[in-house]
Amino acid sequence: MKAERLLIVVSAPSGAGKTTLCEEAVRRVPGLVHSVSYTTRSPRPDESDGRDYHFVGEATFRQMVAEGAFAEWATVHGHLYGTSRRDLEAHFAAGNDVILDIDTQGAAILREAYRDGVFVFILPPSFAQLEARLRGRRTDRSEEIARRLERARAEMAAYPLYEYVVVNDDVERAVGMLYAIITAERSKSRRFTPAPEMAPGR
Amino acid sequence: MKAERLLIVVSAPSGAGKTTLCEEAVRRVPGLVHSVSYTTRSPRPDESDGRDYHFVGEATFRQMVAEGAFAEWATVHGHLYGTSRRDLEAHFAAGNDVILDIDTQGAAILREAYRDGVFVFILPPSFAQLEARLRGRRTDRSEEIARRLERARAEMAAYPLYEYVVVNDDVERAVGMLYAIITAERSKSRRFTPAPEMAPGR
Repeated sequence: MKAERLLIVVSAPSGAGKTTLCEEAVRRVPGLVHSVSYTTRSPRPDESDGRDYHFVGEATFRQMVAEGAFAEWATVHGHLYGTSRRDLEAHFAAGNDVILDIDTQGAAILREAYRDGVFVFILPPSFAQLEARLRGRRTDRSEEIARRLERARAEMAAYPLYEYVVVNDDVERAVGMLYAIITAERSKSRRFTPAPEMAPGR
Repeated sequence: MKAERLLIVVSAPSGAGKTTLCEEAVRRVPGLVHSVSYTTRSPRPDESDGRDYHFVGEATFRQMVAEGAFAEWATVHGHLYGTSRRDLEAHFAAGNDVILDIDTQGAAILREAYRDGVFVFILPPSFAQLEARLRGRRTDRSEEIARRLERARAEMAAYPLYEYVVVNDDVERAVGMLYAIITAERSKSRRFTPAPEMAPGR
């Protein structure tokens, strides 16, 4: 169990900036990779298949569910999202720690399956700022924005279920917090393997 | 309970470099202070009263024990060491987090009294290097060095009781780990106070 890798699960209301924070964390933390989720929603103009998501049809997704391919999956805003169990295990087998950004439903499932996971909730500095960020995304229609805002308020209530809270008032500061959390978790004594001469009981 | 300050308890076998690491942590982490312990041992040439320790006579120390003045106290290498409860509370009341470097016996007492404390064990990179460091301290006689080495081996077996382990192979790296641990602990969700508009249940 000692050589076990870290699973870092990041959730946030949409618009809180979690995608950027996770990308920055991967860039800065050696040995940390992002596991790309599967989704049935359409790509946004700036998104590419295999980098942001694996974009699949609903039939394919349902087939994967039936095969037990997902470590977690959930319906969000009417679309299906899931994390491939095989992808996760492949990252761990390669000796990497994994960061996932998933919604609160998926996180609840992973909390049962990966009890040693590190759960981080990203909060916007204020609800007003969250609304401003969502309205700034020109790609979403206004009824979709209203739906996301309503959902965001509900999602934010889940933060006490997460071990850590990072307020994204400043990207630089927030990434520094994520970096610190991952570094600290890596130095947990239960994950420490001593040199043979230092082992207790010697 | 939310505004509660952090108590960071650092233990290490002597010679592992914990004093330097704690001093550096205080220099770098805003809002972190070092609580100066009481001891009945004599000051080393480079130590000063009130900065490194409060140096007191045994009668004074025993009187303080009788008055319940210590949050923890222990006998180490034949000398008495203790942490003033009033000092700790004064630091917390001033809004500071506190770092203590104490031996494994004292830490065991604080683990009961301060269940929310953060317990960090500093390990030398190897036993050989620990021995070299202890021999390099010209102020200690050789039988004292042998005694400290024997004790160090016994103390090192306590690391699994601590939540975090930091290997002091490089001061810069080790201080970075301490910094990360304190930063991560400060972002634990159970210590987070949301803005009123963000509070759950609203």
